[in-house]
Amino acid sequence: MYRVAVIGAAGFAGAEAVRLLLAHPCFELVAASSDGDAGKPLAEAYPFFSGRTELTFVPHQTVLDYDSASLDLAFLAVPHTVGMQMAPLLLKRGISVIDLSADFRLHETGIYEMWYGTPHVAPELIERAVYGMPEVYRTALAVLAQKRAEHGEAALVANPGCYPTASVLAALPVVKAGLMDAQEILVINAISGVSGAGKAPTATTQFCLANESLGAYGVTTHRHTPEIAQTLSQVAGHKIALQFTPHLAPLNRGMVATVTMRLSEATAERTDAQSIWQLYATAYENEPFVQMLPQGLMPKSGNVKYGNYAHVGVAWDASTRMVVASCAIDNLGKGAAAQAVQCANILFSLNETEGLAGEGGLL
Amino acid sequence: MYRVAVIGAAGFAGAEAVRLLLAHPCFELVAASSDGDAGKPLAEAYPFFSGRTELTFVPHQTVLDYDSASLDLAFLAVPHTVGMQMAPLLLKRGISVIDLSADFRLHETGIYEMWYGTPHVAPELIERAVYGMPEVYRTALAVLAQKRAEHGEAALVANPGCYPTASVLAALPVVKAGLMDAQEILVINAISGVSGAGKAPTATTQFCLANESLGAYGVTTHRHTPEIAQTLSQVAGHKIALQFTPHLAPLNRGMVATVTMRLSEATAERTDAQSIWQLYATAYENEPFVQMLPQGLMPKSGNVKYGNYAHVGVAWDASTRMVVASCAIDNLGKGAAAQAVQCANILFSLNETEGLAGEGGLL
Amino acid sequence: MYRVAVIGAAGFAGAEAVRLLLAHPCFELVAASSDGDAGKPLAEAYPFFSGRTELTFVPHQTVLDYDSASLDLAFLAVPHTVGMQMAPLLLKRGISVIDLSADFRLHETGIYEMWYGTPHVAPELIERAVYGMPEVYRTALAVLAQKRAEHGEAALVANPGCYPTASVLAALPVVKAGLMDAQEILVINAISGVSGAGKAPTATTQFCLANESLGAYGVTTHRHTPEIAQTLSQVAGHKIALQFTPHLAPLNRGMVATVTMRLSEATAERTDAQSIWQLYATAYENEPFVQMLPQGLMPKSGNVKYGNYAHVGVAWDASTRMVVASCAIDNLGKGAAAQAVQCANILFSLNETEGLAGEGGLL
Amino acid sequence: MYRVAVIGAAGFAGAEAVRLLLAHPCFELVAASSDGDAGKPLAEAYPFFSGRTELTFVPHQTVLDYDSASLDLAFLAVPHTVGMQMAPLLLKRGISVIDLSADFRLHETGIYEMWYGTPHVAPELIERAVYGMPEVYRTALAVLAQKRAEHGEAALVANPGCYPTASVLAALPVVKAGLMDAQEILVINAISGVSGAGKAPTATTQFCLANESLGAYGVTTHRHTPEIAQTLSQVAGHKIALQFTPHLAPLNRGMVATVTMRLSEATAERTDAQSIWQLYATAYENEPFVQMLPQGLMPKSGNVKYGNYAHVGVAWDASTRMVVASCAIDNLGKGAAAQAVQCANILFSLNETEGLAGEGGLL
Repeated sequence: MYRVAVIGAAGFAGAEAVRLLLAHPCFELVAASSDGDAGKPLAEAYPFFSGRTELTFVPHQTVLDYDSASLDLAFLAVPHTVGMQMAPLLLKRGISVIDLSADFRLHETGIYEMWYGTPHVAPELIERAVYGMPEVYRTALAVLAQKRAEHGEAALVANPGCYPTASVLAALPVVKAGLMDAQEILVINAISGVSGAGKAPTATTQFCLANESLGAYGVTTHRHTPEIAQTLSQVAGHKIALQFTPHLAPLNRGMVATVTMRLSEATAERTDAQSIWQLYATAYENEPFVQMLPQGLMPKSGNVKYGNYAHVGVAWDASTRMVVASCAIDNLGKGAAAQAVQCANILFSLNETEGLAGEGGLL
Repeated sequence: MYRVAVIGAAGFAGAEAVRLLLAHPCFELVAASSDGDAGKPLAEAYPFFSGRTELTFVPHQTVLDYDSASLDLAFLAVPHTVGMQMAPLLLKRGISVIDLSADFRLHETGIYEMWYGTPHVAPELIERAVYGMPEVYRTALAVLAQKRAEHGEAALVANPGCYPTASVLAALPVVKAGLMDAQEILVINAISGVSGAGKAPTATTQFCLANESLGAYGVTTHRHTPEIAQTLSQVAGHKIALQFTPHLAPLNRGMVATVTMRLSEATAERTDAQSIWQLYATAYENEPFVQMLPQGLMPKSGNVKYGNYAHVGVAWDASTRMVVASCAIDNLGKGAAAQAVQCANILFSLNETEGLAGEGGLL
Repeated sequence: MYRVAVIGAAGFAGAEAVRLLLAHPCFELVAASSDGDAGKPLAEAYPFFSGRTELTFVPHQTVLDYDSASLDLAFLAVPHTVGMQMAPLLLKRGISVIDLSADFRLHETGIYEMWYGTPHVAPELIERAVYGMPEVYRTALAVLAQKRAEHGEAALVANPGCYPTASVLAALPVVKAGLMDAQEILVINAISGVSGAGKAPTATTQFCLANESLGAYGVTTHRHTPEIAQTLSQVAGHKIALQFTPHLAPLNRGMVATVTMRLSEATAERTDAQSIWQLYATAYENEPFVQMLPQGLMPKSGNVKYGNYAHVGVAWDASTRMVVASCAIDNLGKGAAAQAVQCANILFSLNETEGLAGEGGLL
Repeated sequence: MYRVAVIGAAGFAGAEAVRLLLAHPCFELVAASSDGDAGKPLAEAYPFFSGRTELTFVPHQTVLDYDSASLDLAFLAVPHTVGMQMAPLLLKRGISVIDLSADFRLHETGIYEMWYGTPHVAPELIERAVYGMPEVYRTALAVLAQKRAEHGEAALVANPGCYPTASVLAALPVVKAGLMDAQEILVINAISGVSGAGKAPTATTQFCLANESLGAYGVTTHRHTPEIAQTLSQVAGHKIALQFTPHLAPLNRGMVATVTMRLSEATAERTDAQSIWQLYATAYENEPFVQMLPQGLMPKSGNVKYGNYAHVGVAWDASTRMVVASCAIDNLGKGAAAQAVQCANILFSLNETEGLAGEGGLL
């Protein structure tokens, strides 16, 4: 049993990590922190935990004071800017870190500062961080695992955002295969459940204002935009431009990203719906958590809620030379906490599906 | 008071038309028909109508047997293929028709037959029909009104589909101004509430399967595609190609269409966010039911539910040369029954907002 | 046109009153106040109002400074304790008041102070106030109307709470007919949509915590308890005891109160399901807004949302001597703003259904 | 690993059983049957199962043809009347049965026939069946386990209905302690999510008709009534009468039963809120799945969804001598499939929480 802690366990993503870790056969959750709720039993903040854990929230500092003899891994479920303050303290003590904040996702500090409006305070760690999307960076994650196992080197994983996870999984096979002309713009429209807006009661999360309503937000300005562009550009080997438009819809958990990609004329001439579908099916056939739906079907978020699965569907429109691919995930699961556990499994050389295969909510 | 009837009043769009007409100061609802529910009080099929009307469903034929002395206007809220069978019978008797089915929307029978898989049985009426979107065809509708008033000529209106209404209103100002290169593809992603799938209990409309879930459907194959393309092409004066991807989300009523349009380089160089917003604001400043939201805001469907209003927002992304415009409507209101009443107001030379201005659901 | 104002128009009940009054043919809304949103257009606080009104929130004091030459009636949609501070100021100036707060509902200041934890500051007005439930107090309301019309006397109406409206309408015919033994306890279980918890973002109204969940709250302590008991006791002519248990369920608007009443042995012996149903049907046959459903049917809140209608159903269980009656209303409609407009119609001797008959949301 | 099968796996309760059994460490799911979907992969009927199981539905008869060498236990998730036809066939072959239908719940065939309108075809098995609510019948279930282990005797468990589970858990401590006079009527009001109405698309389960609506149904006639009465009467040692009123609310999964119980005068005089709470806390302190909430709190169904937990809260109203107790469960979990797995754990002498402790859905 590896000893793990969740820093920022009172928020939705942190609490979801707690839920998964409590049931995980190889991780022992030794601490869950929250400065606001310190001293309060988890079961008081989330009655769901009644009878499941006797844990009480400790202050963040309690976890930051652990050393590698008592803690193997910390999940940081904290706001951006806090992740980059805490990660160095933990790594210095030899404790691995999976950071669910955005702080180590972007490779260039300039881009980080432009989108997050604040200087990066731990730029020296950025290169060390691996972006925690196993479908793209499994090899790099495995190197972290090896360094940890062989040299006791603490690992740093930048856990992906929810929209980037769904968007990249929808676009990946086309981008990897280089089917688009370089000047084409990927158009990504995504829809998220309200838990993506966090636990704080606000006008956005007010039930009566969110329920029976939907709409776009953050158009042209959402911070997940550069994260998606960075991953797809790295896969493509050249700069990928995209238009990302998120929407909010009235459900708790669930996210769909639909990507529209215009293929080059040369490619379009020699492809068809079956070939496009096969490209996707082949790309994901060995992925434990990405399920390619049968040709003709598109994914529904309800089928992946509470778990780490991603469902992908794809269609081809010869008349417009467009591939339309859609990916459904649980924004708090594969889009946050469950993917973090998947990364933890890799870091500790466990079966990648450990503690995750049985999760999920039929209906 | 003009005498009107609703044929197909047991479905959602028909029943919504009944609701609006019962409260309309200038129309008297003389009959509501349903072959399946014939003989049943409306209040039994929809307990909502208890105390509001004593009407009982009559068979369709009862309405088809009216003549122009007893009926001025029929709303056809029937499935496609039925609209084109009934409209000729009514028009022949001098009764005007607003057809909510798809049968008279497409100008070319070939396109109709390709998308609807059946020959058109009343092709001679297609040219006579005016597409009932006042924001685009108000003049043509007024001509129908004039012919009706002056020559007693029965009018035929093809009431637009819900997705086309939202999509066209989002794209119209850009397309009208010709800001895109001709080879660019408009990308339209839209999200509808479940009432768009109709009243029939099916796997799609099963509560537990629809609730807490969302996803794309009908990708590359949705029948509203040619309807949107036709209207925008007519406005542009040349063929407009588009990629239309509808999604279903768990709410009763509400629809958002988000259109992504890449401007030509020449246009992009000399425009900015304020100019794009002003283009939209000017386009809609005299429209009674299209509300341009303040710059920076995007529409939410919850603010237009139960009514005939459309809310529009627009953003400009200089880095991709993309205009992203979003329009929210009620799919059964402005997207079906309320727009039909708006057309009826025009046909009978009433104030265009008569019976519609006070509708709508706060929260 | 009578001139009216809504004080506290930024809350849900106040905004709903604004919505109804804007469409009312006999009332002119001259002001809507909010101290928190003063200076802000209504359409900014509620985008729903875009294109419907140019009104801007004024501070409460602006309305309190009106006199009877410029204002006929004020709706107070303010928290309890504020109603009893404002009502005297308005009445003194000859302006009639319909108070949606709880301040003038309870006849005994002792009971008010026990349940609301604060002394009553305008006890002299309590006797003057009429409880605004027309189905019980129509005559008293008509007397207010007469005094207003003949002597220019400003009227004071205590608008009922939402739970009391639904509960009393479900129990009224049995209580009025005296079918229960005096020592029996009425058991009232009620379920409300989330708008009953108000507009403020809180843990209770947080979408993800309210959605896909339901539960009881305020058990034995809800402040509507004495209000229900008072009305039913006055109808019965003796003290009625009851157990009131409210629940919250995940919908915006809608409320159901189900009342379980054990009949006396003597009554039970000579009654049956048909007689009980007839008792209800007769009681409500002339009520414009109370619809008795056919025998065997129970009301669903979805059929009365956005309007002023109440649907009532009743069943009889001979084996337990229990009448189970259920009433569905819209908690913001008949349970608050629409009922206030109904009372206003009575106060100004208008048709009682004016501005209310066409409202309501099919689906 | 014990070999188990689910007969009727295409319905919601059956599919939920499949979900739980696939992740269970001690049961191997060897077959899942559905006559309607025979030959179809489970992942096609429920895309949720993609990547989780390769199982394909077999016809019911395939499972009925198993013998005890190849199958240890069958879960019957079939409609009433089918359970009593299948159970004898399986038991005869030495296969234990947990019947989720209602067929073996009622001890008296006369009552079964009165409420289910059909004669019982396997009356000889009724006495052999144990009602599978461990909180009441754990000893009897353990006897079945012992007979199975020692004598190879196939066991028959009648798995409780959802409403009875929640209702009995709310009332149990008061009834067991005999705090009410015998002639008092328990009043039970319960609210269920829509999955309780099953998977079939009907007017009741149509999204738009169920969403944003709630109401009572089956008043005085719901078939769970005699089941609740039977269990509570057996606990009390005398006949318990009750008034059971179920309601439907717009959520997928979740159920709350609120029970109002008038205590005898003698009891009321010497009790208080703390004593009542303590009575409950003591009753449930050793129950692995029943969580007593802290005094003053009432349960919300959202906190127990997808799992086997029951949350219970209780309040005392001295003025009416009423105990109001409320229990929240997941109607498909503790109310059906998860409770069946709990019973299976007991039957096979496993840890009672095996495969169930980690389940459940935060948010």
